[in-house]
This record gives sequence, C-alpha cells and structure tokens, in this order.
Amino acid sequence: MFEVETLKKYVIIVAGGSGNRMGSEIPKQFIEFCGLPVLMHTMVAFKTAYENIEIIIVLPEGLVSYWESLCSQYNFKVHHQLAFGGETRFHSVKNGLELISGEGLVGIHDGVRPLVSKETIVRCYTEAAKYSSAIPVIEVVETVRVLEDNRSKIIDRSKLRLVQTPQVFEINLLKQAYQQSFNPAFTDDASVFESSSNEIHLTLGNKENIKITHPADLIMGESLFRVLNLI
Amino acid sequence: MFEVETLKKYVIIVAGGSGNRMGSEIPKQFIEFCGLPVLMHTMVAFKTAYENIEIIIVLPEGLVSYWESLCSQYNFKVHHQLAFGGETRFHSVKNGLELISGEGLVGIHDGVRPLVSKETIVRCYTEAAKYSSAIPVIEVVETVRVLEDNRSKIIDRSKLRLVQTPQVFEINLLKQAYQQSFNPAFTDDASVFESSSNEIHLTLGNKENIKITHPADLIMGESLFRVLNLI
Repeated sequence: MFEVETLKKYVIIVAGGSGNRMGSEIPKQFIEFCGLPVLMHTMVAFKTAYENIEIIIVLPEGLVSYWESLCSQYNFKVHHQLAFGGETRFHSVKNGLELISGEGLVGIHDGVRPLVSKETIVRCYTEAAKYSSAIPVIEVVETVRVLEDNRSKIIDRSKLRLVQTPQVFEINLLKQAYQQSFNPAFTDDASVFESSSNEIHLTLGNKENIKITHPADLIMGESLFRVLNLI
Repeated sequence: MFEVETLKKYVIIVAGGSGNRMGSEIPKQFIEFCGLPVLMHTMVAFKTAYENIEIIIVLPEGLVSYWESLCSQYNFKVHHQLAFGGETRFHSVKNGLELISGEGLVGIHDGVRPLVSKETIVRCYTEAAKYSSAIPVIEVVETVRVLEDNRSKIIDRSKLRLVQTPQVFEINLLKQAYQQSFNPAFTDDASVFESSSNEIHLTLGNKENIKITHPADLIMGESLFRVLNLI
C-alpha cells in the first residue's frame, strides 16, 4: 500500500477496433467527436487527471500511419508511445505492458470511452494504490433477466454491476498475471488479474462513461460531452 | 393466438415519478424535451405505431391538475383516460387495468421512455398476440460482475438481457395475474405475470429506448430524439 501521489502512473489505451459496427470506413476510435477524434479526447481525459501520466496507445499495426497523419492534421501534441495490437485484447494489452519497465500503477482503458470523468480516473488510481487493483463499476437501472434453456428468469439486479474502464493495477502484479496462457474467458483485464490469484477491488465509475461502439452511442456521447464540458 | 390487427389494443403509461432524482422540482415525466413534456412524446410514440390504441395514463392524484394545465398549455389533444397512481407500481398498474373492460392486448409502458421505437412497439404487440406476452429486451455490452459476500465474480453476459417496456400481455391473463396479493419481488409486470403461472416471451427492444431518470439521460435522450426523428 502506497500513496498514489508517489507512484509512477501509466495508462494503456487499447484502440484496436476496425470500425465495422459503426457502419463507417473510419474505425470508431478515429471518428471525429466534438472537434477531435474519439481517441484523442480519451488521451486528454487522462492528461487532465494526471499531468505526468505516461500514455501507451495500442493500435492495429496497419493503422499507425493513419494515426500519425491524424496527429499531424489536428496538431495533436500529447506525448505517447505506440504498441501494436495483437490477435485479441489480451495480446494487445500484453504488447502494451512490454513497454513498461518500472514499478507503479497501470490503468487499462478502452480507446472508445472518451467520457470517463476525472473523478473516475482519480478514484481508480487512488484505490488501486491501496488495494492493488481498482475497477470502476456502475449499478444496473433496468430489470435483468437471465436466459435458461428455452426460458428466462429475473435475476436480482441489486447484486449486479456493469464494468467500465480504466481498470487499474499494480504493474508487477498485472505483468505476472499476463504471463498466463491466453484463455477465452478473459473478457477484460480484471478477469486476467483475478485468474492469477489476485483480488479485484470495485469502485464507482461514472454513468456517462459509455463505450462508443454504435451510431447511437456517438450521438449520445457527443451531446453528453458538450454538456459535461460546459459544467 | 390471434392476429394482432383484429385485437383491441391498450397501453397503460405509468407516470408516477415525483422528480427527485432529476434535481428538479418538475417530475421527470413532465420535463420539456425537444419541445414537449417527456410524457407527451411517449404518448405520441404509441399513437404513431397504432392510431386507434387506447391510452391510459397513471398519474399521482396530486399532479392531475398540473397535467391538465400542461395539456392546455401545449394544446395537446391526444385522447387518453386518467387513472391515479397507487402506493407502488403494482398498485398503479392495477388501477389502470380497472379502466379496461374488454378483451385484447394491453401494454404497460414507462412514461419516461419516450424513445421507444415504432418497431419495438409493433413487435411487442404482434408477438403478444401470438404468445400471450411479449417483453422487449436488449443485450448487455459491458462485462458484468455479480456481488457475492465481500467479493464479486464475472457472470456470463451473453445470457443476460436488460428489460425495457412496453411489456405487452393478453388483457384477461394480466388482469388475472393482478388479482394476486402484492409481493415486493414484483419489479415489473412480467414478474407479476409469470408469478401467475404464465410464460414470458422475450422479443427485441431498441437500444435508444432509455429511461429518462437522471440529468445525463435527459441530455442523451434529447439528442437521440432529434437525430432519430430526422432519419
């Protein structure tokens, strides 16, 4: 347990999408959103929370030159390192982790979540300094049913939590976890981490921290972004 | 099993909120949203799907005169009957059902879901004509964890569905179900219906069909509404 201020902080932003679900040729992490590509907004969110955070972007290798041309087009100067995307998210994160040599905390964040709040970011790093891990979750507002054979039944939603990112971990423990062989049950970094005998600490996310994956999300996200930045 | 065209159709729109969560004095179902109070948009959605549908609005008794003044202020002429809200949603719906004497199909809908699509409404009534019930659900896009004692674990999200409204039923069967004594486990109409030994049929909802309960929902909903109405 360390104080978060004294720890070196990294974020690996995974931006491996190829854009099919948005019905557009532009991969969703590059779509312009309130004046900047989604991924750039995401990077700015982390720089706003921690000025000295080290940013690692994981991109499909074939999109690196496109990304560089976007940075030049938007005169985007936020310092970052690049890693190449792998076969799955697991392999992408692993590639990102290889660029980190020191100790401290690393957050893994979805490139298409530009609406993560400063409070969520700070909460996750602060609690990860205390508990070795922290992942942001929110409650479910809808009734939830679970499918069983040809039927379905209600499940107690008060016990369910929707998981967001950044998922923040002690670097050494996460690196150790990523030494495991790939398992299709690894749906996020928390699942990799806990499969290596670590415990996951849950903290509060923010409702607006949606994943921009469908056109409806882009519309909702854009208006949320405008309003949140006016407040 | 009947053809949906030949059946009389009703919708009970439950608008019992008192508005606290919106941080406003105006109950959320009455907040203006793209030029009309949320509840009026919701009513228009059903009239657009089925011109002859009978609309029953359930309102807290103390808000009826406010509602009437809004109808006059907005020159809102969509025909509807009023029922008074009860102690819980269960009692509110029961009060609404008492205004229905004939047979056919009845949908129960949240007053604060103005973004229900025509396709969702038609799908629910059409499939309820065939299966006695139909409730709209969508898949979960986030990783989901379930709390257990002091820990949490991942639950297979591919088996989970988020439940929306309208939940549509054969009138006679739903009325019979509402003869049961109230049980706090009744979180929606489907739970009342199935506790009376009926089966619930799931159909597809629409992602934009969000519940307007927090300020962020109002912002997202308003921009979605504008765009969906332009398409």
